[in-house]
Amino acid sequence: MDKVKYAVIGLGFFGEVHADVLSGMPDVDLVALCTRRPHRLKEVAERYGVSKTYTDYRELLKDPEVEAVSVVTHVNDHRDIAVDALKAGKHVFLEKPMAATVEDCDAIIKAADSSKGGLMVGHICRFDPRVSLAKAAVEEGRIGRIVSMHATRNLPKDLTAQPRVLDSISPLMGDGIHDTDIMLWLTKSKVKTVYAQNVRVRDFKYPDIGWAMYRFDNDAVGVIEVVWFLPENTPYTIDARMEIIGTEGAIYIDAGNAGITINDKEGLHKPDTIYWPAVHDMRIGALRTELSYFVNCVKKGVKPTVITPEESKMAVAVMCAAEESAATGKVVNM
Amino acid sequence: MDKVKYAVIGLGFFGEVHADVLSGMPDVDLVALCTRRPHRLKEVAERYGVSKTYTDYRELLKDPEVEAVSVVTHVNDHRDIAVDALKAGKHVFLEKPMAATVEDCDAIIKAADSSKGGLMVGHICRFDPRVSLAKAAVEEGRIGRIVSMHATRNLPKDLTAQPRVLDSISPLMGDGIHDTDIMLWLTKSKVKTVYAQNVRVRDFKYPDIGWAMYRFDNDAVGVIEVVWFLPENTPYTIDARMEIIGTEGAIYIDAGNAGITINDKEGLHKPDTIYWPAVHDMRIGALRTELSYFVNCVKKGVKPTVITPEESKMAVAVMCAAEESAATGKVVNM
Amino acid sequence: MDKVKYAVIGLGFFGEVHADVLSGMPDVDLVALCTRRPHRLKEVAERYGVSKTYTDYRELLKDPEVEAVSVVTHVNDHRDIAVDALKAGKHVFLEKPMAATVEDCDAIIKAADSSKGGLMVGHICRFDPRVSLAKAAVEEGRIGRIVSMHATRNLPKDLTAQPRVLDSISPLMGDGIHDTDIMLWLTKSKVKTVYAQNVRVRDFKYPDIGWAMYRFDNDAVGVIEVVWFLPENTPYTIDARMEIIGTEGAIYIDAGNAGITINDKEGLHKPDTIYWPAVHDMRIGALRTELSYFVNCVKKGVKPTVITPEESKMAVAVMCAAEESAATGKVVNM
Amino acid sequence: MDKVKYAVIGLGFFGEVHADVLSGMPDVDLVALCTRRPHRLKEVAERYGVSKTYTDYRELLKDPEVEAVSVVTHVNDHRDIAVDALKAGKHVFLEKPMAATVEDCDAIIKAADSSKGGLMVGHICRFDPRVSLAKAAVEEGRIGRIVSMHATRNLPKDLTAQPRVLDSISPLMGDGIHDTDIMLWLTKSKVKTVYAQNVRVRDFKYPDIGWAMYRFDNDAVGVIEVVWFLPENTPYTIDARMEIIGTEGAIYIDAGNAGITINDKEGLHKPDTIYWPAVHDMRIGALRTELSYFVNCVKKGVKPTVITPEESKMAVAVMCAAEESAATGKVVNM
Repeated sequence: MDKVKYAVIGLGFFGEVHADVLSGMPDVDLVALCTRRPHRLKEVAERYGVSKTYTDYRELLKDPEVEAVSVVTHVNDHRDIAVDALKAGKHVFLEKPMAATVEDCDAIIKAADSSKGGLMVGHICRFDPRVSLAKAAVEEGRIGRIVSMHATRNLPKDLTAQPRVLDSISPLMGDGIHDTDIMLWLTKSKVKTVYAQNVRVRDFKYPDIGWAMYRFDNDAVGVIEVVWFLPENTPYTIDARMEIIGTEGAIYIDAGNAGITINDKEGLHKPDTIYWPAVHDMRIGALRTELSYFVNCVKKGVKPTVITPEESKMAVAVMCAAEESAATGKVVNM
Repeated sequence: MDKVKYAVIGLGFFGEVHADVLSGMPDVDLVALCTRRPHRLKEVAERYGVSKTYTDYRELLKDPEVEAVSVVTHVNDHRDIAVDALKAGKHVFLEKPMAATVEDCDAIIKAADSSKGGLMVGHICRFDPRVSLAKAAVEEGRIGRIVSMHATRNLPKDLTAQPRVLDSISPLMGDGIHDTDIMLWLTKSKVKTVYAQNVRVRDFKYPDIGWAMYRFDNDAVGVIEVVWFLPENTPYTIDARMEIIGTEGAIYIDAGNAGITINDKEGLHKPDTIYWPAVHDMRIGALRTELSYFVNCVKKGVKPTVITPEESKMAVAVMCAAEESAATGKVVNM
Repeated sequence: MDKVKYAVIGLGFFGEVHADVLSGMPDVDLVALCTRRPHRLKEVAERYGVSKTYTDYRELLKDPEVEAVSVVTHVNDHRDIAVDALKAGKHVFLEKPMAATVEDCDAIIKAADSSKGGLMVGHICRFDPRVSLAKAAVEEGRIGRIVSMHATRNLPKDLTAQPRVLDSISPLMGDGIHDTDIMLWLTKSKVKTVYAQNVRVRDFKYPDIGWAMYRFDNDAVGVIEVVWFLPENTPYTIDARMEIIGTEGAIYIDAGNAGITINDKEGLHKPDTIYWPAVHDMRIGALRTELSYFVNCVKKGVKPTVITPEESKMAVAVMCAAEESAATGKVVNM
Repeated sequence: MDKVKYAVIGLGFFGEVHADVLSGMPDVDLVALCTRRPHRLKEVAERYGVSKTYTDYRELLKDPEVEAVSVVTHVNDHRDIAVDALKAGKHVFLEKPMAATVEDCDAIIKAADSSKGGLMVGHICRFDPRVSLAKAAVEEGRIGRIVSMHATRNLPKDLTAQPRVLDSISPLMGDGIHDTDIMLWLTKSKVKTVYAQNVRVRDFKYPDIGWAMYRFDNDAVGVIEVVWFLPENTPYTIDARMEIIGTEGAIYIDAGNAGITINDKEGLHKPDTIYWPAVHDMRIGALRTELSYFVNCVKKGVKPTVITPEESKMAVAVMCAAEESAATGKVVNM
């Protein structure tokens, strides 16, 4: 069996999780890493035994050995890196959101259309078994036509302050996009109107709280809640829930509660068992499933179909409309 | 990369799940299948594209290409097949319980000791991230010394009647062994005394309900509840919970609730998202993690350490003592 | 001890619950009943041993023995009955919503201002211990300033179809008003802007689903969800939850789950233990607490302060704005 | 309406709760209080405006005005006070457990048999709406014959150390008796055999943890868990759950979770909303319902039937057998 030669660009917290997962996959050879910070680059490369390191992603893209890359950088850098990687013929796994603007998404899609490399944006929730089982149930007609949805994706206030996440991205664009993508996926419909409200509590670039209400073409209402400001004593890392009500049934997802609560001297904890937990030193979970799917597409030479670039762009478009509504106080028609 | 040549012996419901998982692992080559039922053998072999098929496991064991086998048969057949497979030098993944008696466990361990093949019994819960995170928390001292434990592992009555599971194995031996193994693993202690009660409701070979109370060497109490008789309308496939109380903290596991509830015309469902769910046609979950671990041991040429045969035998010994107590009404000293 | 002489006007389902609760209160003498339906009047009067019966509420109001009345009629009749009762000098307990329009509320308040009778609108949730404990915690400053709220008050579709509740009142006016009142009470703030969406699924006078998003003067966002269209298999009578997030803490109420689940041949049930459950033939719960509070005010000769008519009118005003927004698709400024 | 003239004997924490509830009941006149501690007596008497105070309960019993008494003293004092009160012709509400031994229970029952006063032991859970609804469902045959039960009644370790509750009563006798009584009530059966284990962690007179397993005459198994040693960070005041499995259905009670969680700077709290919460300065809940029932029996001149002295004695007998089993390590036949 041939292994896919893989590189990771961007080595913040989540870039390293990518590296960790990839280094444990039997059909992947993690061959190169890239970050602008030399010290960090050395540290992560040593941890995972990666020999090739780059501080300039353009140099990495010149390496003919590299077949596929994970792009795990700030969203504002997505456009340039993704376009360049696709032009270099690499298969690109791009973290969400696809890009900061619809124009940037268009540029990336254009580059993908003329590249031999495939492109997939990391809407990880589509590989969360709870969400994919919900999708399967909807497709089987078990809940009929969807008429109302509500998604919560709330984080404790410390998590969004250290490092200063809220200087980097807004709650709606950062987390609301997950549930917006899920709603678009489940309904297979388009958003017709968007109304949103932001609430600013602390002194960051972006507000602490975002709410959005969508009306879909299929007549459903979808409501997005992102409170990046839960109390310090919140007993979970994330409060992520979704309620999907259809004409024939309903689905309830509680993604912040995967069945374990640890009560120790520091308080209550509900550790992640779904996204990227480690079991006996193996990184398992949705990220691994997602990367496995992407790697399989690379190996088979097919374009990913579970998530398409057009879908990823649509989620960005809706979030941009939500931010516009929150800024103007008006309803935005799409 | 070389793939491990793998065979599955026993193709009931769970044997096929093994085949399904193994056929999706990049470093495994599922080369052979075995069951006494020719029609079933053909059906499963075709589904997973396996060319070699056997109705006699002894013939399969003569195949030099086969490096590793999953034994997924009735527990009463475990001893003969496991001993023969180990004598044939195969690596053996044996489903739980290890065997029906302590004597059978001893025979298997003896065979393993003189085999070049490794042996691991499938205590899958040790690869459930909730349980392995609990183990990690205990090892880190986060809850101090364990003083009280309660495990529930209850099933709806239809599941234990069709097929006639209750004619095949008792609740304590069939499911109580999971939690007994976890308690032994977490406390790293031995069971000193066992008291148990069975309740018979329906007309099967084995009783419908088993309860056991253990006193451990470290002074903890552990209580096992296995009710294979929940009402038809039970909204989950399994009600599996564990409460672990220590001198410095506590851990609560709710393994029947992994965060999704589907309400359709047939009622409420909480589908499996942890043990062997399918996500976009990929079988993921604890069984895959467990088999990956086993395959990695085979590839590296090391004996599995996450579960050892001696530990598996100990769990059988405790369950045998529980059945003795339930039969006699007396406390059994171990 | 003197008992308060009490009458109930309106004997639908909930009017009878009033009669049942009142007949069990030691300091109340249920002396009269009124409904336009003679057969129903006779039936309920016999059940609770009430001697005086009326088919015309005006006749009842002429009875000098009657000191206090519960008005439990259709909301469209609230104005006339409440005004007449107050003019007749009775103490009036008026079920929610206060009235169908702000103008009607004003007329009732005007009548109350010049009456010797007190007036209280039945916002029962303020007497739900979960809600009143939340109010107390907010008043004590335990969660700081409120910044985000979400309330769910969803009902199974059968409950809103038989009898044809949805031909009588809309989800927002019928149930959304509960949570709107609670949000106004908790924040002690005013609603600045209202945006709402209705979804029509079945063929009733009113839509099946209502959603509203408020911006409060204190800068908080409040979101109201009323889905009167949950699936038949919904395992509870009501899904009523509220999330209140403040700068220093948070409160979560789950009013649909008061700690008992019964699984019988018909499915899962979570019976009411808070609002008006019967315990050994005694009707207890929030309705009784609320009526006890009202009766105590009558006995002491003081105006109720836990709920004031001005507050009840404000909740109606916000719901009317929500219906206007849903009809026009525009944001409504208050 | 005449009010019942009532006295409270014993003014610890719970005696004061009795006084608080009684002082708010419209058909009760709280006329006298008794405790051996003069300072405490004065404090509580002033708080509730009670004019008659006694440091010797015998003096109080001589007061002809007193019709009924709540006895809320240490269990070891129950026999003498209850016998004397019944001999004095008072109606006696005696807190649980009835007495420390079966002999003491017999003495109290003998006194009750020849007294004009009624006797009721305060098994408050029978007035918890969750439990009484469970009893009603069982009586209606909705879950068939009961075959397995498990009750948990666990408390945080601070609650059992300050004041030194564990020097006063054991977990099984103190709290296990609640669930034992409920099991006896629900099954209407007798306990045939008892096996129990205690675990000692801290240095109190009684062990910190008690477990008991019963076999009933109707063939059901019942398991009692009382861990008075939960971690400090436990987010509820009590973890009280019961699982009742029958041949036709099942009932699950979660009495530690009545639908509100407050997250403030000190952590998570799930305040009581069922037993004796205060709503707008009114004490409501199960204790009030229980005392109302008792007062109604006094007013009507009938013996209480919801709880009988013989039933209360039976619960004490089972707990004594459990303590014997825990001490000897043997199964006790009843």
